[in-house]
Amino acid sequence: MSFASGRHFLQIPGPTNVPDQVLRAMSAPTIDHRGPRFAAMVPPLLEALKPVFGTAGDVVLYPSSGTGAWEAALVNTLSPGDRVLCFETGHFATLWQRMARDLGLEVDFVPGDWRHAVDPADVPARLTPQTKAVLVVHNETSTGVTSDIAAVRRAMGDHPALLMVDTVSSLGSIDYRHDEWGVDVTVSCSQKGLMLPPGLGLNAVSAKALAASARLPRSYWAWQPIIEANKRGAFPYTPPTNLLYGLREALHMLHSEGLPQVYARHARHAAATRAAVQGWGLELLCLDPEAYSNTLTAILMPEGHDADRLREVILDRFDMSLGAGLGKVAGKVFRIGHLGHFNDLSLAGTLSGVQMGLQIAGVPVKDGVSAALSVLAEA
Amino acid sequence: MSFASGRHFLQIPGPTNVPDQVLRAMSAPTIDHRGPRFAAMVPPLLEALKPVFGTAGDVVLYPSSGTGAWEAALVNTLSPGDRVLCFETGHFATLWQRMARDLGLEVDFVPGDWRHAVDPADVPARLTPQTKAVLVVHNETSTGVTSDIAAVRRAMGDHPALLMVDTVSSLGSIDYRHDEWGVDVTVSCSQKGLMLPPGLGLNAVSAKALAASARLPRSYWAWQPIIEANKRGAFPYTPPTNLLYGLREALHMLHSEGLPQVYARHARHAAATRAAVQGWGLELLCLDPEAYSNTLTAILMPEGHDADRLREVILDRFDMSLGAGLGKVAGKVFRIGHLGHFNDLSLAGTLSGVQMGLQIAGVPVKDGVSAALSVLAEA
Amino acid sequence: MSFASGRHFLQIPGPTNVPDQVLRAMSAPTIDHRGPRFAAMVPPLLEALKPVFGTAGDVVLYPSSGTGAWEAALVNTLSPGDRVLCFETGHFATLWQRMARDLGLEVDFVPGDWRHAVDPADVPARLTPQTKAVLVVHNETSTGVTSDIAAVRRAMGDHPALLMVDTVSSLGSIDYRHDEWGVDVTVSCSQKGLMLPPGLGLNAVSAKALAASARLPRSYWAWQPIIEANKRGAFPYTPPTNLLYGLREALHMLHSEGLPQVYARHARHAAATRAAVQGWGLELLCLDPEAYSNTLTAILMPEGHDADRLREVILDRFDMSLGAGLGKVAGKVFRIGHLGHFNDLSLAGTLSGVQMGLQIAGVPVKDGVSAALSVLAEA
Amino acid sequence: MSFASGRHFLQIPGPTNVPDQVLRAMSAPTIDHRGPRFAAMVPPLLEALKPVFGTAGDVVLYPSSGTGAWEAALVNTLSPGDRVLCFETGHFATLWQRMARDLGLEVDFVPGDWRHAVDPADVPARLTPQTKAVLVVHNETSTGVTSDIAAVRRAMGDHPALLMVDTVSSLGSIDYRHDEWGVDVTVSCSQKGLMLPPGLGLNAVSAKALAASARLPRSYWAWQPIIEANKRGAFPYTPPTNLLYGLREALHMLHSEGLPQVYARHARHAAATRAAVQGWGLELLCLDPEAYSNTLTAILMPEGHDADRLREVILDRFDMSLGAGLGKVAGKVFRIGHLGHFNDLSLAGTLSGVQMGLQIAGVPVKDGVSAALSVLAEA
Repeated sequence: MSFASGRHFLQIPGPTNVPDQVLRAMSAPTIDHRGPRFAAMVPPLLEALKPVFGTAGDVVLYPSSGTGAWEAALVNTLSPGDRVLCFETGHFATLWQRMARDLGLEVDFVPGDWRHAVDPADVPARLTPQTKAVLVVHNETSTGVTSDIAAVRRAMGDHPALLMVDTVSSLGSIDYRHDEWGVDVTVSCSQKGLMLPPGLGLNAVSAKALAASARLPRSYWAWQPIIEANKRGAFPYTPPTNLLYGLREALHMLHSEGLPQVYARHARHAAATRAAVQGWGLELLCLDPEAYSNTLTAILMPEGHDADRLREVILDRFDMSLGAGLGKVAGKVFRIGHLGHFNDLSLAGTLSGVQMGLQIAGVPVKDGVSAALSVLAEA
Repeated sequence: MSFASGRHFLQIPGPTNVPDQVLRAMSAPTIDHRGPRFAAMVPPLLEALKPVFGTAGDVVLYPSSGTGAWEAALVNTLSPGDRVLCFETGHFATLWQRMARDLGLEVDFVPGDWRHAVDPADVPARLTPQTKAVLVVHNETSTGVTSDIAAVRRAMGDHPALLMVDTVSSLGSIDYRHDEWGVDVTVSCSQKGLMLPPGLGLNAVSAKALAASARLPRSYWAWQPIIEANKRGAFPYTPPTNLLYGLREALHMLHSEGLPQVYARHARHAAATRAAVQGWGLELLCLDPEAYSNTLTAILMPEGHDADRLREVILDRFDMSLGAGLGKVAGKVFRIGHLGHFNDLSLAGTLSGVQMGLQIAGVPVKDGVSAALSVLAEA
Repeated sequence: MSFASGRHFLQIPGPTNVPDQVLRAMSAPTIDHRGPRFAAMVPPLLEALKPVFGTAGDVVLYPSSGTGAWEAALVNTLSPGDRVLCFETGHFATLWQRMARDLGLEVDFVPGDWRHAVDPADVPARLTPQTKAVLVVHNETSTGVTSDIAAVRRAMGDHPALLMVDTVSSLGSIDYRHDEWGVDVTVSCSQKGLMLPPGLGLNAVSAKALAASARLPRSYWAWQPIIEANKRGAFPYTPPTNLLYGLREALHMLHSEGLPQVYARHARHAAATRAAVQGWGLELLCLDPEAYSNTLTAILMPEGHDADRLREVILDRFDMSLGAGLGKVAGKVFRIGHLGHFNDLSLAGTLSGVQMGLQIAGVPVKDGVSAALSVLAEA
Repeated sequence: MSFASGRHFLQIPGPTNVPDQVLRAMSAPTIDHRGPRFAAMVPPLLEALKPVFGTAGDVVLYPSSGTGAWEAALVNTLSPGDRVLCFETGHFATLWQRMARDLGLEVDFVPGDWRHAVDPADVPARLTPQTKAVLVVHNETSTGVTSDIAAVRRAMGDHPALLMVDTVSSLGSIDYRHDEWGVDVTVSCSQKGLMLPPGLGLNAVSAKALAASARLPRSYWAWQPIIEANKRGAFPYTPPTNLLYGLREALHMLHSEGLPQVYARHARHAAATRAAVQGWGLELLCLDPEAYSNTLTAILMPEGHDADRLREVILDRFDMSLGAGLGKVAGKVFRIGHLGHFNDLSLAGTLSGVQMGLQIAGVPVKDGVSAALSVLAEA
């Protein structure tokens, strides 16, 4: 089948479909990053970002991927040999703790089955006097499981460890409260809920994190020079100007819709998607209804069916990209991204494509689209 | 509900969803229309257009809407008081014959019920010795009814009248053969199957049409100076350069997919749409299955329900634009455009939106989307 | 030499360099021209256009070139055989009167040498009791000569003829006052001072013009249906939506700079260009300093040098397009466009390119750029 | 004065003027970076990059600024406490050695006056048995001085230290030969000669560099996983897809023009700029004609005149951004960038703007533009 007509459905859980107004904003000419027009753009941009993180504190932008923002969180706060506590919620939690090891940290990695959120009840026993930081992935992009950050923080009690949270696939899509929940470093990036192309890594930083005595070597990722330079509308090195144009437009869109409305929309789409999965008679990877992700849904293939083959059928036949199973669920799981610049009819098209793809791939499923439409129509 | 997120579904029967690659092509800088780069662009562009019309003859482009191309067809071939034969297939056929009257022609207007195509059997009796031209709308955008042009031509026998055909909503979407069918002037425009913004009117012209002795005053629309200038890559007045960039890209897309594949895609989408209508238990405006349009479907609202209210609900709730009933079917009919840059999943989203809108508007309908998906999945 | 690097200098007197923000605005998705978003766009757009024409009356937009807007002016106001008075100020005045003849009007064409403006003193003697309209080109794009419209109007006294003015290359660049000067129809288009790609024709229309009893056949160009539809944010046929997006942005730019500032900028650039011409020791086509155009400068080549050869050298070597001599000055004249989206440094680059081109083409010239820079620096 | 009209002249030495075709290429929709379309894009992109570096070896791309690519060079090759040799050629050489210190390296920093290139004769005496790497800035963006890398390499003799070279403002504009000259790590970025917006850092890497036993902690910057993933058209973390679209287009442009032609163009523009400086009677910062940069020219202000005030005048009055004096030449120097997507007429405009700005700022200068035009016209 041909890809020649109609828009591609990019339903991986990020990069998401970039709004055309954001792409247009990004295609404005690059300007002098040391001149007055640039300087005037920076402060309102940072101010508009803060409510998305739920912080009144500092937000730091990097020309980087989200992986870079993980590294920034670690090297700005920790010293060689420091002990950190991580939870195996999925593929990205596994990669982050591996990065911590690569950078010379000691990692306590609490094993998990990739089908549950972090259990706050586990936290106290896992904390040691030497634990310097707790690392949690808010919304596991590989599994569609969302952990309760506020509960994790409460479970840490008055332990002095820093709390660092990866919000790569939740920020801007699922309610998040850096300050209120007591997070020290929030890590995120541009290409998911912020509706931008990849290329921008973000950290929101608490005063405690800023004050951490950290001896890991750092230069590019160092927070302080960036925060200082930002105060005068500048950056210590050349910023990704055109992505900042796009960010300005994307934040304008999010605030125009209203963050509560944005979060409600994602919740509605997730509920409709799960209704479709139930209709199809398939199984969610996530086993805990309290932890269902609002931004993506990971679905187990029935025995004897390969998830990657399904994705291939759907790409070839319907020009839709779905997320693969990653790491230990490779081939067993496929993921539907339903986040970012997205609406009811695009979701209906997405779920229709999955349903037809399942049928064409010979997976025995019943109609699930009708159930999803009911959810959407009743909203 | 908000329009803030996701792409608008522009499912009127034109303008259609312009591909983003066409919009990008159109945003290149305007160049000197008398310079060598422009001159080099024109001949291949006209050559690439010809197979879409099914002609080896001349195609003329105007900076105009399709309405302008109607006028061009008339003023280049007819003289004040000339008699033309028109058929009331719908709103646009009515407008075209009104234009003919406004320009000083005598019109024989064969009445119709807006639910049937031109009946070729009617033609011979309607032709008079004075008839100078027969005007037919190939695909009535207001009704979703497609007339059989080859049959009309055959029915004209050896009558010397010119045959002029409006292909505004069929060109590039439904198989069309200017030369083979013996059409003299084919009228079209940019914003439907050619996947461009509005602003370009087109005529394909037979040698007989070119030779017509016509005394209606004309200057802007005169074919001969344009055809002459085109031979050296020029236009007699400033052409719409950026639309021509877009046309080049759009024709590249159509030929890459392959015209037969493009036509088959439109046929498949139309069949799926009619399956949905049947599922809903609603009635098509078109009463003749042979004349079902492949580019749009006009649907009658059940008694007691207003089509414009439905469209309003769907626009407010699902950010989708549908076509209104025009002229004498205003309020009674709504139209789904399924032409141009469009694919299976966008159609699934479109039909899902119509179904949910009908339910929300209180129109008693059953599930039709499943039937449509079956058509698409089996294709 | 290569065209591979840097921006092309499009210094023909139109199409002009389209601002990239206008091109971006035009690349937004086409919307439903019968829907509420479109309807909301139309009235403020027309209001923003009016001050550019200097009118509080009606402005009519066509999907057309400027040539179409000429035809619209004539067919809306005149009847077959009507007598009109035209002045041979250059190539475009010649083309307009030829169109008038083609449409069946009687033309009194006052001969001219293409080097002077319309002489208002000529007007009274040329008017006859049968004269129904006087047609004047405000700024002759082929010669760089600007006529004094207010003086022409005064010279008409209380003669009932309509005054129609072509402002194709002056509107938005040179002060113009449709109402104050008593103009009945002002003709213009998109691709010059309005900084858009070609594709939009414009008429500003007085009450007297609207009331004219005109029997030339017309349909596409008819004012009344457009003015009526515009009142409710609509058009009688599909408008060029994406050009309207561009127009909105371009008008925003003009009003942000301020029309008086825009006009002063064009005057400054024209003065600097003439200073360069004087420095080069070349001769202006325009012989009357009162009539020097602010938007373009036409320059006579010295004996024995071909203007088209010069333009070719400059295009090949410096990637700059200049205007050719048209009609009876072909090969003898080249034209520098200095209008639209343009600034001092682009003018300096333009004049530098002309100077180097003249030298390379073997035309004996002295330095003229320095004189131009003095004008610009002192401004 | 207003900025409302015409294009901004971005004549800082980077970011440079991004070609509009690159901006358009970048505005295509982001695609799945794990899908087949993306995978097919990567290998030809890397192949097209290699000749720009003059290497047949590995090139590594980062979502980062050039500063990140500096860090990548160091952490992939060195261990804590390693000794590196640096040369104070200007501001960026100073920043790079500071980064080396921040990352825990020992730096031998050979002092310089910012007006000369690295003297290869200095190298042997500065090398110690402990020296692990020599760091040289090829083209100092802060001073307009170009060092002779091949000579530095020869001067190193058979010393085992790695040679690392910053080509941030030379790559793609000045002939550079990673392999032939024996460079181990070449550092660069997107926003200068590669004509892209900022956001992409680059390393070209020799086999020796790849084999270096390095114990600086690293994860994001680690070469090996990127090189491995690239072999199958992938990246270990989300790549900056839209910048890669732009890179593809920019490389196509460079290769279409031809790299030798690109380098010759930059040499011509630099020569013309220096002719203007001489005409003005001003002094170049660079004291060695062999080391004049082809991509930017740094000019000393006469005593009693402030360079930043001049830049402000030029920005306000002519909408042109020039480079500031950085570090110890702040206020004393301004820099003209003449690299990237640039041509003769834009250079003429640039130099005209500088000349007028100098005059308006009260700096006593004579005409320099004429001399520059002579250089350009004779080329």
